[in-house]
Amino acid sequence: MTQTNVQPSEFQRRAAELNDLLCVINVLTWDARTQMPGGGSSARAQQLATLSTLARERLLDPAFEAAADEMADDGEQTGQDSRAAQQALEAISAMQRVPETLTRELALLKSEAQDAWATAKLNNDFAAFEPALTRMVALTRQLAEALGYTAPESGGHPYDALLNTYEPGLTVKTLLPLFERLRAHHVPLLRAIQAQPAPRSDFLTRFYPADAQKTFSLAAAERFGYDTTRGRLDQSAHPFEISFTRADVRITTRFQEHFLPGALFGTLHETGHALYEQGVDPDLSRTVLTSDLLGLYAVGGASYGAHESQSRLWENRIGRSAAYWKLHYPELQSTFPDSLADVTLEEFLRAVNKVTPSLIRVEADELTYDLHIMLRVDLEMRLIAGELEVKDLPAAWNARIKEDLGLNVPDDALGVLQDIHWSSGMFGSFPTYTIGNVMASQFYRAAGEAVPDLEAQLERGEYAPLREWLTANIYTHGRTYTPHELLVRTTGEALNPQPYLDYLTGKYSALYSLEATKQFATLEQLATKEHKETV
Amino acid sequence: MTQTNVQPSEFQRRAAELNDLLCVINVLTWDARTQMPGGGSSARAQQLATLSTLARERLLDPAFEAAADEMADDGEQTGQDSRAAQQALEAISAMQRVPETLTRELALLKSEAQDAWATAKLNNDFAAFEPALTRMVALTRQLAEALGYTAPESGGHPYDALLNTYEPGLTVKTLLPLFERLRAHHVPLLRAIQAQPAPRSDFLTRFYPADAQKTFSLAAAERFGYDTTRGRLDQSAHPFEISFTRADVRITTRFQEHFLPGALFGTLHETGHALYEQGVDPDLSRTVLTSDLLGLYAVGGASYGAHESQSRLWENRIGRSAAYWKLHYPELQSTFPDSLADVTLEEFLRAVNKVTPSLIRVEADELTYDLHIMLRVDLEMRLIAGELEVKDLPAAWNARIKEDLGLNVPDDALGVLQDIHWSSGMFGSFPTYTIGNVMASQFYRAAGEAVPDLEAQLERGEYAPLREWLTANIYTHGRTYTPHELLVRTTGEALNPQPYLDYLTGKYSALYSLEATKQFATLEQLATKEHKETV
Repeated sequence: MTQTNVQPSEFQRRAAELNDLLCVINVLTWDARTQMPGGGSSARAQQLATLSTLARERLLDPAFEAAADEMADDGEQTGQDSRAAQQALEAISAMQRVPETLTRELALLKSEAQDAWATAKLNNDFAAFEPALTRMVALTRQLAEALGYTAPESGGHPYDALLNTYEPGLTVKTLLPLFERLRAHHVPLLRAIQAQPAPRSDFLTRFYPADAQKTFSLAAAERFGYDTTRGRLDQSAHPFEISFTRADVRITTRFQEHFLPGALFGTLHETGHALYEQGVDPDLSRTVLTSDLLGLYAVGGASYGAHESQSRLWENRIGRSAAYWKLHYPELQSTFPDSLADVTLEEFLRAVNKVTPSLIRVEADELTYDLHIMLRVDLEMRLIAGELEVKDLPAAWNARIKEDLGLNVPDDALGVLQDIHWSSGMFGSFPTYTIGNVMASQFYRAAGEAVPDLEAQLERGEYAPLREWLTANIYTHGRTYTPHELLVRTTGEALNPQPYLDYLTGKYSALYSLEATKQFATLEQLATKEHKETV
Repeated sequence: MTQTNVQPSEFQRRAAELNDLLCVINVLTWDARTQMPGGGSSARAQQLATLSTLARERLLDPAFEAAADEMADDGEQTGQDSRAAQQALEAISAMQRVPETLTRELALLKSEAQDAWATAKLNNDFAAFEPALTRMVALTRQLAEALGYTAPESGGHPYDALLNTYEPGLTVKTLLPLFERLRAHHVPLLRAIQAQPAPRSDFLTRFYPADAQKTFSLAAAERFGYDTTRGRLDQSAHPFEISFTRADVRITTRFQEHFLPGALFGTLHETGHALYEQGVDPDLSRTVLTSDLLGLYAVGGASYGAHESQSRLWENRIGRSAAYWKLHYPELQSTFPDSLADVTLEEFLRAVNKVTPSLIRVEADELTYDLHIMLRVDLEMRLIAGELEVKDLPAAWNARIKEDLGLNVPDDALGVLQDIHWSSGMFGSFPTYTIGNVMASQFYRAAGEAVPDLEAQLERGEYAPLREWLTANIYTHGRTYTPHELLVRTTGEALNPQPYLDYLTGKYSALYSLEATKQFATLEQLATKEHKETV
């Protein structure tokens, strides 16, 4: 797809223009979340709506479909051009299947439902959100029907249609057994951890000046290889990463002066996303292979899950590891002498890896996080399948929190109303967080097998070899491959939770002085049995 | 044009979409100049090019012309709708007259010429810029022919076509006599000032911490009425104001720690622009009447000159006045005690109003600024008329600087290469700076006649009555009226330099203890005679 000295084809020209529009949407979104004065929000919403409409028009322009057809049929084209044309045709076909009235209704409902949700959460009043959510579920079920899925009698599920928009190719048939295995592992591991004494973590809420946090966080991002000549770090209420081609990839974080881990690990998380975007092959800029055409979103990652695998890999596998802090804890201590002088490396490491069941997903540790996800996925699947009514959602939520985490939900604001996703119609996106965890461990294991001496390099703070391997095997490809193809190419196998389970078991066995790994495997097996009996 | 509860017409719908696109272009421009990492510039240029192409396509879409025609013919429409349709039809017609090849050639040349200019300026090597500038002049002459103008035998000039794109309706026939009068006034006034002892101004280059400058500047902007819930102040290499509807109007300034007036008056200047944009009638948002359709630029002001009148009014008439500093100098002193403790109010006032011929336009005082402008306009008119060749430009420049300002130009970087305008093809824009000065004084005089007790209010630091009068009489109308119409509606007369000349004479007579105004008028008359003899 190298276009140097070659006149771009009509397909490439139109795809470039479309990608430009999606990048522009991202610029406006970034500005709205980090810079825009409050008064500008309603004009900005109109500008974004106009751009989305234009992008949709350009995607559905018969001339674009014709150009993609021609490119797909062209025997001379490169593999990337062929992929790009194929993906464009799939997106066009999917969008054609969704009636314009439904798209418009969903867009209108989205802003209405988000308002209703915000009010309901503020007032702890689920009933105020129920009508909008009921309508959102109804429209999303229509969307699933319009997008299409394998018939239930052949093993399909309406949720497949939604899953596919975030994680191309993933189905309930693959997802559920995977989740079953994770849950069977996580719940007993959590019980075993809870039986041990909890590490202290009080010092994490001491005073950590925001300026110093920013300096340390930015240096940490750059240490991993985040290129600030093609990016910048800002503050926002909710941290995120966003790209306007690989040449401009921005991250945000939130500096809370009485909670150190937020910015510390939040920045590493967004850095993982950013390394992915900055590592995309330059030849893929302004092509379909850096465009999520169904989501009308410029992004270089293969899927939400693949993207999340990289944020989790850099945040958790590297950023929370003993090797990382052995090397960088002295610097952190000298950055915050007042708050960390009396805290040992081991205390710090145990604190930032502490497992505590909590009501709030975004505050959860690595282990309980997946339980939060699985709860949501179970409920939203039942909503989409018509097996659960919106009015029964709070009770179902609370029962599952009690069962998995042993906690009582005191009110809906701390329960079913905590996430914005459903009010935004993002049914099918929650699984990608956990899929990301699973993929991260698969990729990390493959990197370890491919890069000689990887652990020793990391212990010396040499992050370039890992980043370069990930770039060459994952990042550079953009959206050329589906996440499944990418896994198979890179790790030799499909989605497989074993490396992830091994990682968690090993990590927490060490941190919590649990019985040897082998014995814990037995515990896991026992637990699986126990779980099956109680469900 | 109130659209509440009324379905917008096809014309309004398309105009709103077009305005959205222009606002988005502005957001991208603001970001590029204030936030974007260096690596993003080439992708950003492509994104901007795509948006401009789209906006141009939407403007030239036959359906938009048909909708505008229908609106213009509709007897039922409001005055604003009629104006909007008329302006859209004029812009469409003008753009239709410009061949697409010329538009494309100009766009390509613009970036090439800017690069050549930057290199030439850096190396003080006019010859390196000459070929690109020669081509720019040739294409701009083609542009003038395509846009059209009154035939020379009927008093027209090709420069009229270019002037009209910045200052609708203004022609050489009006401009030249006006400039003649200004020059006849300014040169002798300058000589008279130069005959007096120069006030001290050394303290302006002492140390002024950037943070304190920003705090003081922002407070000063807010004092004039700049609404920061619909705006924000940032830093950029070249200060500017830009709007994305009246709801989001941003300004920038540059904080130089060893030059206080830069940020101090730069901020007040941009605040004047911003008050204009923030004061536009909300009903004009997302319409043709806040769109410069020929320039493909979202802006609420009637013209470049009208806009500049407001930046100059707030910066110079108010911000450099004795009344202003009498009130606010103590605060400035306490903000910068180390640098201003030994400086009296009168010394400060004389320093920030000091007249000194200088080589550089952007550093010029109020009086010599106009001379810089007139020099440029004279030269660019002759270039466009084919009366001056690009190769002869440096000599012509240097001769005129010597004549008007008495200075020798040591090199072209400090002379003909100092401005970016010509490399950007902005022929015809320079006059608007001086037109702005002239209009500012006309508007200010009208305000003084309409608002009882205006001077006393300003002496008390009450800026709201002036701002409200300007809003009601100028800002609210957006681009509804041409600058000429606006002047006649607001001041009862056409462009008239007398109030401006009276202001300058009065101001500098007081500051420099010149002979009484009456006697100076004689000096002016004498000078006019002398000037005529020497030209």
